[in-house]
Amino acid sequence: MPTPGLLRRLAVAFAACALAAAAWAQPLPSWNEGPAKQAIVRFVTDVTAAGAPTFVPPEERVAVFDNDGTLWAEQPMYFQLAFMLDMARKAAEANPKLRDDPVVKTLLANDMKALAAMDHKAIGKVLAATNTGMSAAEYDRAIRAWLATAKHPRFGRLYTELTYVPMVELLEYLRANGFKTYIVSGGGIQFMRPWTEKAYGIPPEQVIGSVAEVKLETVGGRPVLMREPKVAFVDDGPGKPVGIYRGIGRQPILAFGNSDGDLPMLQWTAAGSGPRFMGIVHHTDGAREYAYNRNSKVGKLDKALSEAVARGWTVVDMKNDWKRVFAFQ
Amino acid sequence: MPTPGLLRRLAVAFAACALAAAAWAQPLPSWNEGPAKQAIVRFVTDVTAAGAPTFVPPEERVAVFDNDGTLWAEQPMYFQLAFMLDMARKAAEANPKLRDDPVVKTLLANDMKALAAMDHKAIGKVLAATNTGMSAAEYDRAIRAWLATAKHPRFGRLYTELTYVPMVELLEYLRANGFKTYIVSGGGIQFMRPWTEKAYGIPPEQVIGSVAEVKLETVGGRPVLMREPKVAFVDDGPGKPVGIYRGIGRQPILAFGNSDGDLPMLQWTAAGSGPRFMGIVHHTDGAREYAYNRNSKVGKLDKALSEAVARGWTVVDMKNDWKRVFAFQ
Repeated sequence: MPTPGLLRRLAVAFAACALAAAAWAQPLPSWNEGPAKQAIVRFVTDVTAAGAPTFVPPEERVAVFDNDGTLWAEQPMYFQLAFMLDMARKAAEANPKLRDDPVVKTLLANDMKALAAMDHKAIGKVLAATNTGMSAAEYDRAIRAWLATAKHPRFGRLYTELTYVPMVELLEYLRANGFKTYIVSGGGIQFMRPWTEKAYGIPPEQVIGSVAEVKLETVGGRPVLMREPKVAFVDDGPGKPVGIYRGIGRQPILAFGNSDGDLPMLQWTAAGSGPRFMGIVHHTDGAREYAYNRNSKVGKLDKALSEAVARGWTVVDMKNDWKRVFAFQ
Repeated sequence: MPTPGLLRRLAVAFAACALAAAAWAQPLPSWNEGPAKQAIVRFVTDVTAAGAPTFVPPEERVAVFDNDGTLWAEQPMYFQLAFMLDMARKAAEANPKLRDDPVVKTLLANDMKALAAMDHKAIGKVLAATNTGMSAAEYDRAIRAWLATAKHPRFGRLYTELTYVPMVELLEYLRANGFKTYIVSGGGIQFMRPWTEKAYGIPPEQVIGSVAEVKLETVGGRPVLMREPKVAFVDDGPGKPVGIYRGIGRQPILAFGNSDGDLPMLQWTAAGSGPRFMGIVHHTDGAREYAYNRNSKVGKLDKALSEAVARGWTVVDMKNDWKRVFAFQ
């Protein structure tokens, strides 16, 4: 019988071979050859080159990704908002008193244009009332049920089918090269965690996002986490570096976003010393996905685009850099 | 040349062998044979037994540990408090105006008994004023410098030498069996993260704790996280399940604590379905460490001890269950 020490050394050697083998395979097959793909591959090659001055030890290979508009679509509205509105609809069906509210009325009439023009605080109040007050476990079940059935209005597909194939490949490529991949999103942690592991290979504990207040209560003699109608943390804009500080405690060496809400995270990543990669997904493909930037109400990309160009960050042109957008296309 | 697929399969097979080899070695060498060690080994055997009804898949093997009094000592005062008091001392040396404050005066006179009797709010105010207002990076450097030099008053050792050898073995044993180990502490994340990886094998991103508010500011054209004199989150008592919800998003299957502040975390862990392990470190060893429980000002263990006994949780008797406490003994 070989000694445990020998076995361990052999295992390490074979794991290294397997990693090398994975590296032979052409990475990022859904990316066209071009400056974006080249910049990614060059960066990964640099930080993994043992002995090179650009080498970064694996534990410091922290990669953070925005979610909405970066890893999956976000038009015509954030998918979490679509879910929260459906929760309000369901609550109104169960509780007729709610239907007197003008926001709820407009929602039930399915007049999304009129709804968008309404006072955002009034909408927020309805959403808070209908998306809190239950246990975190109950809310989790509602999210899973919705994701299993609700369809995107344009593509007629489950929302989880609207993840970007090239970005999933990028996440896999980074992990194969020793990176730890995180989501750092303005979206809520509860809405993302049920599906990010399957969709992206990112487990719940690597999902950083906005947080609703939860409170420990005793229900029927058992401890239960109840969702409170209060936002505990907004993981957007300047909140993103704070979310990274709280949840990771290391400065990322790679960050990807798609909107001005990601700019502080990109700046924060760029501010560290050593090799850094800052990337932006630019929505340029109205045919396969959507085309929008400086004037969009959802995912506005204005200042971050200017800064990316000025500082030489990588701007991914969805139309020209990606062979495919969604897996079903 | 073997194919990448073959290499990967071989690597997996060898990694499995190495794990098996690690399992042959007698686990927990610094634990005496007894009910505590038996309960731990039985639990780990149960949840790793493929095909058994008690089997838990690796991604769900979440183990959470309190830090102060559970993984390292906490007497005669929390080590973080000793650090924060030293920060106040240093600030008073640099800024004579501060010395007019009665708390600072008492502190500089090194009259710890008088200090303990002072108004806790007044002490808190001094600590907040002298432990915030700098960047998170600066504070990190101060913590590292302190840990490299400050000595424990009784043992004359660096504070990081006061980690419990049997608990470090337990963390290693759990990880060797596919567990992911976390700290869930009332202590601050910034104070723990610089040293937990080396001391426990727990990386910064698996350290959950109390959080000071930090704010993103621009200093000299660069983004900087500044420490604000405000507590953003208290990870103690009922806050511990909330911290787990925020930072992990999975219910632990194993929890270890040592005081009443850990009771909600232990109850929360116990409330999940399937195999569960709840453990308490009972400080019974005045000779090698300290002996305290129901009446202690630091690490009071009263309700949690009663509940542990009533519910059959594992109570570790430091004196009888551990062959060694500290590595230097």
